[in-house]
Amino acid sequence: MEKIKVAIVGYGNIGKYALEAVEAAPDMVCAGIVRRNASKEGFPELAPYKVVSDVRELGSVDVAILATPSRKVEETALKYLSQGISTVDSFDIHTKICDLRETLGKAAVAGGAVSIISAGWDPGSDSVVRALMQAMAPNGVTYTNFGPGRSMGHSVAAKAIDGVKDALSMTIPLGTGIHRRMVYVELEKGADFAAVEAAIHADPYFASDETHVMQVSSVEALNDVGHGVNMVRKGVSGATHNQLLSFDMKINNPALTGQVLVCAARAAMKQKAGCYTMIEIPVIDYLAGNREDLISHLV
Amino acid sequence: MEKIKVAIVGYGNIGKYALEAVEAAPDMVCAGIVRRNASKEGFPELAPYKVVSDVRELGSVDVAILATPSRKVEETALKYLSQGISTVDSFDIHTKICDLRETLGKAAVAGGAVSIISAGWDPGSDSVVRALMQAMAPNGVTYTNFGPGRSMGHSVAAKAIDGVKDALSMTIPLGTGIHRRMVYVELEKGADFAAVEAAIHADPYFASDETHVMQVSSVEALNDVGHGVNMVRKGVSGATHNQLLSFDMKINNPALTGQVLVCAARAAMKQKAGCYTMIEIPVIDYLAGNREDLISHLV
Repeated sequence: MEKIKVAIVGYGNIGKYALEAVEAAPDMVCAGIVRRNASKEGFPELAPYKVVSDVRELGSVDVAILATPSRKVEETALKYLSQGISTVDSFDIHTKICDLRETLGKAAVAGGAVSIISAGWDPGSDSVVRALMQAMAPNGVTYTNFGPGRSMGHSVAAKAIDGVKDALSMTIPLGTGIHRRMVYVELEKGADFAAVEAAIHADPYFASDETHVMQVSSVEALNDVGHGVNMVRKGVSGATHNQLLSFDMKINNPALTGQVLVCAARAAMKQKAGCYTMIEIPVIDYLAGNREDLISHLV
Repeated sequence: MEKIKVAIVGYGNIGKYALEAVEAAPDMVCAGIVRRNASKEGFPELAPYKVVSDVRELGSVDVAILATPSRKVEETALKYLSQGISTVDSFDIHTKICDLRETLGKAAVAGGAVSIISAGWDPGSDSVVRALMQAMAPNGVTYTNFGPGRSMGHSVAAKAIDGVKDALSMTIPLGTGIHRRMVYVELEKGADFAAVEAAIHADPYFASDETHVMQVSSVEALNDVGHGVNMVRKGVSGATHNQLLSFDMKINNPALTGQVLVCAARAAMKQKAGCYTMIEIPVIDYLAGNREDLISHLV
């Protein structure tokens, strides 16, 4: 069976873990890495691969894993889809997913390709669990509790404040979807901690959450990519109340994102042209292996 | 929008809960109940419905929920599929699922209908979670721990033993997929408990598990349809080990089975002719409501 030819676009944290997941996949081969700066320098693990600045230099590519920031996804995906290359991404701006799906859907159909969007863990695999829980108990409330783990968005917001050299915002789950923010800041020389603390509390990113700001001498020393989720639903099946469902995970965050992207890349090979979120795809399509074998082992 | 016309075939425990789930579904109407004995007697909740012994008496039916024992599923499904009526069932003999899928698949294609098999909670919704966990961490082990809750198969096996008037076998999870059997027996007059206990321990259904047999004066007094599952996977995403995933539920067993069957009946309306297990269907298809609304709320 011919292997799926995968390009990885962007080689930050997610790109690195996506490459590891491609290498571990029995049905895939890495066609190369696309970076603005087409350099392998500093990355010995890229020695076996072509690193290029334009995907056309890689020859035939079935699917591109867009390991780029969310705000770059639309522009990048449109370019690849117009060349008939399927794309997967982990676009995580929840409020803009439907719009992106519509835009990329048209481009995917026009290019005869498939786009799977928001294929990380939340949105992504969590979304599949949330949808399944709603099917199992259609009335009720689901709470998604994140952490403990770093919030990229909140860390960037804290780092943008005057006087902050580096920052880490940890998300701490307090239950029922309520979170505490533990913000660790490393200050610029001469900066005033009280002023920084006040600015963080006043920032709209933090204003509605319980937020604690602490000064540290090195944010780098706190670095840990572990993260977690606890999703709970208490709901009603038919007329029967108090059905209790929960999903928990404690994971390396970029490793799971990279793995889910690779699963989505595989699934992209099995869909009709168009754009999909993960809940619109049969779960079996994310898996490598013979269909009957998977059914007999997993069902 | 026209509602999905659902027939319920069989009116035991699962049939009753399936009817409640159909009644709670905004997009469905119950076309009637099919029972060998076409009687409503003893079931005041059936007053609004036609109860018949042949589905053809119900007029137009889109999908039949087969709330019958697993051993009756194939024969019953073949009859309905040949009439162009889609079917869903909660067939739970894990080793025979692939064969059933092949047999019903041919009949479904011939009848221009859809069959969704093994749509309960295990096999069923648990299968979807198991498949998703394998996608998230392709190498590793998943343990499915059942209970505490009644095992129908083990209860029937215990009841079949000479001298047993009634029996309940509770499944107790000991972790790593190992289960204890707590067997409560009500004896026939004059039966010898020690002989019954020995026969249960010797029965192949119980021989490989830690089994405790207790005599009670009334098995009926122990009746409780609560059940549970704890599924855990520790595995590898890409090259990153120790990814920890778990799913837990504490549920009314027939109520969840009835609800999942109803979700599958809805999904049957959205598939091409053929036979499917739950992992072969997009999770969104199990849900009522507008597709974009579901995506914006769940993804």
